[in-house]
Amino acid sequence: MSQEIHIVAVIGCGMIGMSWASLFLAKGLKVIITDPAEGAELRFKRYLDDAWPTLQLLFGPIDQELANNYEFVDDITPRLGTVDFIQENGPENVEFKQELFKILDRNAQSEVVIASSSSGLPSSAFVGQCENKPDRILIGHPFNPPHLIPLVEVVPHSVTSYTTVSKALDFYRSLGKHPVVILKEVPGFVANRLQAAINAEAYSLISRGIISAEDLDTVVTSGPGLRWGVTGPIITNALGGGGGLDGFTTRIERLGPAIRRWEDDMHEHRFDWSEEKLTLLEDEVRKYLTAVDWTEMTRKRDFVLLQALRARF
Amino acid sequence: MSQEIHIVAVIGCGMIGMSWASLFLAKGLKVIITDPAEGAELRFKRYLDDAWPTLQLLFGPIDQELANNYEFVDDITPRLGTVDFIQENGPENVEFKQELFKILDRNAQSEVVIASSSSGLPSSAFVGQCENKPDRILIGHPFNPPHLIPLVEVVPHSVTSYTTVSKALDFYRSLGKHPVVILKEVPGFVANRLQAAINAEAYSLISRGIISAEDLDTVVTSGPGLRWGVTGPIITNALGGGGGLDGFTTRIERLGPAIRRWEDDMHEHRFDWSEEKLTLLEDEVRKYLTAVDWTEMTRKRDFVLLQALRARF
Repeated sequence: MSQEIHIVAVIGCGMIGMSWASLFLAKGLKVIITDPAEGAELRFKRYLDDAWPTLQLLFGPIDQELANNYEFVDDITPRLGTVDFIQENGPENVEFKQELFKILDRNAQSEVVIASSSSGLPSSAFVGQCENKPDRILIGHPFNPPHLIPLVEVVPHSVTSYTTVSKALDFYRSLGKHPVVILKEVPGFVANRLQAAINAEAYSLISRGIISAEDLDTVVTSGPGLRWGVTGPIITNALGGGGGLDGFTTRIERLGPAIRRWEDDMHEHRFDWSEEKLTLLEDEVRKYLTAVDWTEMTRKRDFVLLQALRARF
Repeated sequence: MSQEIHIVAVIGCGMIGMSWASLFLAKGLKVIITDPAEGAELRFKRYLDDAWPTLQLLFGPIDQELANNYEFVDDITPRLGTVDFIQENGPENVEFKQELFKILDRNAQSEVVIASSSSGLPSSAFVGQCENKPDRILIGHPFNPPHLIPLVEVVPHSVTSYTTVSKALDFYRSLGKHPVVILKEVPGFVANRLQAAINAEAYSLISRGIISAEDLDTVVTSGPGLRWGVTGPIITNALGGGGGLDGFTTRIERLGPAIRRWEDDMHEHRFDWSEEKLTLLEDEVRKYLTAVDWTEMTRKRDFVLLQALRARF
């Protein structure tokens, strides 16, 4: 159970690892960190200094002492037997992860969950050499940056135990995250597939000259995107049909034939990633992005995001 | 120019027409409304009474007198020569619209823009019999409800003049809308295609048992949906690659191969709208939607929507 988790190992401290570690510290956990990259410890210190005020805006006052409750170690192997949860954030390389997980599995206590932040590789790809307890290994894929965005995709492999999934969900929930379970391993898991779906159609429409890149963004931010932070696709569909399960089925019956025609047309003009189409896309995107004030855009994005998150926690 | 528009005709006063008329009134325009349905005038009066407080929350204090500045007429033909803009919201039936637009075009002053709220039919499908000035006809497709959601898709047909498009954009902007131009007619225009793209993948994942319907919604509302109200797909992609045009192209280069693999898998498992798949989908959706508190959900959605809109206007 999450209340028994006091010490977390963060294996790999790049962008994702630094963000996870910051969140773990803000939530009162002791964190043991390792990363072979030169200057990793200093980089983390700076990242944490930046992230801490945001975490305080999000969670309220946090004891400053908690920010020091970590150790950076060169070799984590002798410490693996002392930790209560492992969050791995190494490179997305299958041989690397196979070797790493063999070591993690051999040295961690048997009831400890080993979660990988991998967005690309399912855990079935790298647990084959784990001879101790591979059923406590799963994916805990965060949405960048993990210390802010609530979503975590929890993806078991075929041997992962129910208890492991439950423990991971409890742990992530105790941090204020909104974990979901992906019941079968699929490429891209769920969030990245949904994003890919909308991006693919956006790329197609822009490269075909149907709409400018700027107007495409406006369609989302002034139209359907206004709702997607509060109602997901299924509830949005149901409300569109008048609410309730009836609303969902009514909408499918009423709009189904039209939607199928749109889908057929979308399919016919599917973005094909050819050099020609990519060039058309990038030419259109260039016209738009050269005029963007990135400092202002990032500030606005972070402000809105923080407002939305504070309204939830 | 929009400052010359004082009187608007609303042709067809169902859900979309009522919402447009309410917005036009709140923005100080005189509105001439027609709808052949029995009880249409009373229904509109009730709708307006409901919508007015929301419009006041959105725009600030509005003179109560403005809410009375409309006329419901049985036959609008003799009044068409007196209006400065026409917003048509009739049924999505091609023969009906062909007949209607012939009359509108014959009787409206020649410089007056005639916009159709049609979401399904492009205007090229129903301007063929317009013998007067078909180049001032276009689609002005709102996003429901038009008095709240800023998006309007402006879709010219091949003969629509540049001046007509400009006038329509100016007029919608003067109402606080965020109009975009769809440069070529495509089935579903843009917003509905983007929604169809995400919905199709959502339906596929749920009916395949990859994720529950409830968790699917959480993926969106706690993940990518949190950002889509402030940054559209293109800016989101650019920020994901570190910002700027470089960020966009870097992301494409770095993630392109992975995204193509996800897309191929999505394509292979494309939701096929068969009875079998629809039943699987609806069975999963039922488990989720029977537990939803719709009053609370609608209240929360409207609150968040209004907050987001007030922050923009």
